[in-house]
Amino acid sequence: MAQNAFDQKKDHILAEIHNNMQDLSPKGTIDELCWPIMDLINSHRDMVTTSSCSGRLSVFVEGNKLSNEDVKSGGKGEGGKWLFVTHNREEVMRWTEKLPEAVVYEKAVETATVGSNVRYILYKYEPFILHVKCRDFLTASKLFSTAMACGFRESGIGSNNIVAVRVNIKLDIPIGYLDQNTQKLVFFVNNCYIQLIDRMTLSKFSENTKKMQELYDKIESQLINPQQSATLSGPLHETKEERRERKKKEGLERQQQIKQDK
Amino acid sequence: MAQNAFDQKKDHILAEIHNNMQDLSPKGTIDELCWPIMDLINSHRDMVTTSSCSGRLSVFVEGNKLSNEDVKSGGKGEGGKWLFVTHNREEVMRWTEKLPEAVVYEKAVETATVGSNVRYILYKYEPFILHVKCRDFLTASKLFSTAMACGFRESGIGSNNIVAVRVNIKLDIPIGYLDQNTQKLVFFVNNCYIQLIDRMTLSKFSENTKKMQELYDKIESQLINPQQSATLSGPLHETKEERRERKKKEGLERQQQIKQDK
Repeated sequence: MAQNAFDQKKDHILAEIHNNMQDLSPKGTIDELCWPIMDLINSHRDMVTTSSCSGRLSVFVEGNKLSNEDVKSGGKGEGGKWLFVTHNREEVMRWTEKLPEAVVYEKAVETATVGSNVRYILYKYEPFILHVKCRDFLTASKLFSTAMACGFRESGIGSNNIVAVRVNIKLDIPIGYLDQNTQKLVFFVNNCYIQLIDRMTLSKFSENTKKMQELYDKIESQLINPQQSATLSGPLHETKEERRERKKKEGLERQQQIKQDK
Repeated sequence: MAQNAFDQKKDHILAEIHNNMQDLSPKGTIDELCWPIMDLINSHRDMVTTSSCSGRLSVFVEGNKLSNEDVKSGGKGEGGKWLFVTHNREEVMRWTEKLPEAVVYEKAVETATVGSNVRYILYKYEPFILHVKCRDFLTASKLFSTAMACGFRESGIGSNNIVAVRVNIKLDIPIGYLDQNTQKLVFFVNNCYIQLIDRMTLSKFSENTKKMQELYDKIESQLINPQQSATLSGPLHETKEERRERKKKEGLERQQQIKQDK
């Protein structure tokens, strides 16, 4: 039987996920915290996840501001430099100790730090984001409404019935600059302030995890269960708890497989 | 002739805009910087703007974190307190001098500032955002693609063919806290740092204005001009420059009318 375009695409994406294709983010692999919700969504015959990030802290030196569109859209930009990235809350505190080079703490912000050519060091928390391709507009609309209903207020439907699921849990803080003469990293906030924003980041991670769980539960009750018998994978008639346990187990197994494959 | 639902809704919204209904933001009236692009979009028979913000700097004390959803979604939250809000770049520098009360600058971040009950003072830059209701999905899709094509990468289509036009130009910085004993505002960053982030805010304002202009031009060339003869308002056959001048003039006249009405 000939497959339609959506099913072909979905099979292709699921194979890619299975083969643990490298994504473009500095981390490389798909975040394990995304596995449960990805599995849940992909168990629906009319949806497939196309990209995801479970939420992360990143610290980077901005790239070239004059010629680059990425800087404007919030990324590190061309010529930018990652200093630290983690999706794991356990790694948040004391990240400065893991930097490749020593940091200079400046008592006061110098006049040298003013001007359009200064390359700032930015500290960012970005929340969970997920893109889901849907078979049709009706499915996309249902997913969109479900996401909005549990607080993912920056969600939207885009081209080709792809839903972007977004929430506004952010930090976006300039903490220093790159001294272009000495090439040293100079912080214009002190270590106490860094510790404070690190603690805020931990609380953002918690809030984010809570929102992901709310979304999981809502998608399960609104989109998966009403037509459970039509899903392609997973035993029928399992309870919510059974499903969660099974998904968790499958995720862990896959995770171990990925580690072995490396 | 009986009007259809979209036309009725559009007439109603345009009348509201004309009567300068108070919106829910602390500023009250519709930002004048939004007038040109609103006028442009509303000149299209299949679109009407439903809400907008031209971009703003806000500084506020967070509200109650335990019971409030708004805090989580980035707003000031219930019980929160606006300290300063402006949509005008001219008012950015030296905003601290306009605060209703004196600020204490703390040398080091104290341990008192740790914990889930601390009410932080947040400094936020938020860019231009616009919601546009479209007559049909085709128009919504066109507007969405036009916005995405000029860098409004967080745009999306929602319910009822309403397009949210969003760009990622943000700052989100904790700068202090409210001392719950003395009720004083305590900053844990120094005045030099405040000046630095104020200058960054000015550069965000510029970037934002540039993006708004790009969006204006793109909407005009992609959505307005191809069917200029079908638009409901505005003389036909005017050039791009003539239209811009006319819209500017109309905006100013309306602005003056608003001031007189107050």
